[in-house]
Amino acid sequence: MVINNKEKFMKAALNEAKKAYNKLEIPVGAVIVKENKIIARAHNLKEFKQDATKHAEIIAIEKASKKLNNWRLNNCEMYVTLEPCPMCAGAIINSRIKKVYVGSKDLKTGACGSKLNLLNDYEFDTIVECEFGTLENECQTIVKSFFKKIREIKSGR
Amino acid sequence: MVINNKEKFMKAALNEAKKAYNKLEIPVGAVIVKENKIIARAHNLKEFKQDATKHAEIIAIEKASKKLNNWRLNNCEMYVTLEPCPMCAGAIINSRIKKVYVGSKDLKTGACGSKLNLLNDYEFDTIVECEFGTLENECQTIVKSFFKKIREIKSGR
Repeated sequence: MVINNKEKFMKAALNEAKKAYNKLEIPVGAVIVKENKIIARAHNLKEFKQDATKHAEIIAIEKASKKLNNWRLNNCEMYVTLEPCPMCAGAIINSRIKKVYVGSKDLKTGACGSKLNLLNDYEFDTIVECEFGTLENECQTIVKSFFKKIREIKSGR
Repeated sequence: MVINNKEKFMKAALNEAKKAYNKLEIPVGAVIVKENKIIARAHNLKEFKQDATKHAEIIAIEKASKKLNNWRLNNCEMYVTLEPCPMCAGAIINSRIKKVYVGSKDLKTGACGSKLNLLNDYEFDTIVECEFGTLENECQTIVKSFFKKIREIKSGR
């Protein structure tokens, strides 16, 4: 069975989310793609690094910028398992990423349309396209499963 | 002459902004203060690092988190010479900074009230206090002077 590129890249982001899951981090993964190749992969490391800026998207942007030696991530796309928060949506705008594919919505802090829409509702220099829904179920499931596990750990089961 | 603490800390942020100016970076500086002591100082390094996430505020949060070994910057205040963009305002919220003192407004991308207000207009977990106006003139002047210098360099004067 041929899976399309969007699913292939979101699967790579999900694979990153699983690494976060195994480290007891909120399981979010992101990859950055340029010319149909993954140039950066990252997962949430907020607890491990004890740094609230170390979301998957920020680390992926750091890695892609280093790889291209350019802060302008022109013609790059991001695949991310959970809708970016305001910090990460702002970083996506600042780094000139062209399009973001979001797996699962985040109704509480999502800044790509769910809680607010930083990508399109304000006239910043850049407009970032956004598409929801690639592997949405898998991306939702890993987050739900994580919080169930955390509740079990906390209740001593 | 006794200057008050707000001016003392904003002067330290301005001193950071000057370091950025001398590196031909947009001159923004930030310091983070806890219990009346500066625990982190940073300036914009976007061009030097070729990384759009390397704004003064993000680097200051990274440094403060490392110093405290805690992503929660409880009871910390930030002094920043220019109003934070959405990325940085989001990082301030995520890191639980209590209050931000902003020197100069940024009408184009300021996310603490000028272009939008991430700190107060949305019901995120944290509400961050914000106060404008400390050393506003000096904070405005360094940005204006920087763009004048850049125009002169570009026109070959």
